[in-house]
Amino acid sequence: MRQAGRSLPEYRELRKGIGMLESCFDPELVCEITMQPIRRHGVDAAILFSDIVVPLKAAGIDLDIVAGVGPVVATPVRDTADVRALPRLRPEEVGAIVEGVRLLTDALGDVPLIGFAGAPFTLASYLVEGGPSKNHERTKAMMYADPKTWHQLLGVLTDITIAFLKAQIDAGVDALQLFDSWAGALSQADYREYVMPHSQRVFAEVADAGIPRIHFGVGTGELLGAMGEAGADVVGVDWRVPLNEAVRRVGPGKALQGNLDPAVLFAGPEAVEAHARRIAAEADEAIVLGATGHIFNLGHGVLPDTDPGVITALVELVHEL
Amino acid sequence: MRQAGRSLPEYRELRKGIGMLESCFDPELVCEITMQPIRRHGVDAAILFSDIVVPLKAAGIDLDIVAGVGPVVATPVRDTADVRALPRLRPEEVGAIVEGVRLLTDALGDVPLIGFAGAPFTLASYLVEGGPSKNHERTKAMMYADPKTWHQLLGVLTDITIAFLKAQIDAGVDALQLFDSWAGALSQADYREYVMPHSQRVFAEVADAGIPRIHFGVGTGELLGAMGEAGADVVGVDWRVPLNEAVRRVGPGKALQGNLDPAVLFAGPEAVEAHARRIAAEADEAIVLGATGHIFNLGHGVLPDTDPGVITALVELVHEL
Repeated sequence: MRQAGRSLPEYRELRKGIGMLESCFDPELVCEITMQPIRRHGVDAAILFSDIVVPLKAAGIDLDIVAGVGPVVATPVRDTADVRALPRLRPEEVGAIVEGVRLLTDALGDVPLIGFAGAPFTLASYLVEGGPSKNHERTKAMMYADPKTWHQLLGVLTDITIAFLKAQIDAGVDALQLFDSWAGALSQADYREYVMPHSQRVFAEVADAGIPRIHFGVGTGELLGAMGEAGADVVGVDWRVPLNEAVRRVGPGKALQGNLDPAVLFAGPEAVEAHARRIAAEADEAIVLGATGHIFNLGHGVLPDTDPGVITALVELVHEL
Repeated sequence: MRQAGRSLPEYRELRKGIGMLESCFDPELVCEITMQPIRRHGVDAAILFSDIVVPLKAAGIDLDIVAGVGPVVATPVRDTADVRALPRLRPEEVGAIVEGVRLLTDALGDVPLIGFAGAPFTLASYLVEGGPSKNHERTKAMMYADPKTWHQLLGVLTDITIAFLKAQIDAGVDALQLFDSWAGALSQADYREYVMPHSQRVFAEVADAGIPRIHFGVGTGELLGAMGEAGADVVGVDWRVPLNEAVRRVGPGKALQGNLDPAVLFAGPEAVEAHARRIAAEADEAIVLGATGHIFNLGHGVLPDTDPGVITALVELVHEL
């Protein structure tokens, strides 16, 4: 359950007066924040506390995460010269994250750790727009008007993503998840032409590690098949598409992750149980239809106002089911 | 092209110092603002300048449209008592809009005028959340936890929407468009259970007028069939689903509207032309597959930074095609 931390009082306490990026580059904090939902909820795996812009910052790109806004990039990337000027990521630049992963593999014991990175398209959107964007118009403008520069940009970001994931793999993560948070803004045709070859290279370059590779997005109903083809072993599904339909789009031979609407956690225990049971039944059907497994999860991050007790009860219920 | 106004200097000039709601209740301004894109771009139909919260405000609900935020509701609707306290809309309360429509039917001559209303689910989201919401968690919480109150709320909003549309029909609109801007946040099963019966009642109650009824949403790939079944003659499609696929979901016997990504208008004339030609070709296929027609449009509103000259050129190109 990604972003479970932000609903926890112990997380808010720990983060008091400490910026988001500062926390992401502090190995002790990375370890402690990653551990908090494990202790509290007893979930079956931990996901590394980080942010998708962490490898960009580490590589030397001038950006910050502004509370209430999101990542803000000092100099947006708009043309070939900007792309050429982008740095590469040297593994030692993410030494703090690597150290956090090492602390975690000790602290977690038998609980597996999922590594974390943003996918090239979503990273590109932040760099081109200069921050969060509802419509990604400048990103798409570069994509459509200047595909050569676009593919150069995504090539650089793919290299950075691969270097970041390899550093996490070397440090001992047991699985990895690639977040393409904004891919759902694209049609399938555009995803296949402008994005998929790069995500494909990310997954191919980390295949040797032999650990499960999860691919996640939101509003990606049209893209589920393509996101699986990009090379993931597990495809994340949001609540808009039932798992027994998602399996038809993804095809057999891959696992599914999801897909409880985080808003259901605000609707009381009966609604949570009804939805969890429905999802478990749809997951069973998906497995009959060829899915290799199901990771019960929310279809998106935990919302900040979520009652942590509701999450703990949900985890217990899922374990029973 | 909905919201074409906000990209026009003459619109910004006219709105200087005048609030959004104030403009919506001023018949002369409603007429002038609706006319501006007609004069400038030569589009084939006008869409009434308004906002989805206008009938709520007219009925007496305390709300305002805050620049840079959106609609803000003074007292959010959270329980049965709140729902029972909601007012109904009397036709004379939207007299200013009716007068605007009358001025427009004169000013437009042969150019048809499309009436405008928000759909019950989207109106409910604003009332329950108290303003714009990314995740609609309180809205969905009411829907799942207290379906009886939920259906009462949507019943009231359906009555208001019908009264608002009937007033526009009586004043002479030639078509109407029902905007369910946030419906794409729902799965199809939830849409069918919690939303569709109410949208269905809206369309049924205005059927006698014999004018085309358009239903619009964004991110509604999973809902296209259900949104057509709700009773629309025309289903709006965003850019995520090609029209030759949308027709399969909507089924034969209805027209499609869309579906150029508004971001394409930032990508230069070659990209605009390529996408417009692709959409025209996909629309031709959709008609072979049973669609009764195609209204060329953007898949969402015009973005504020759009160059108006690009829109004018696109309209010319579409007329040529």
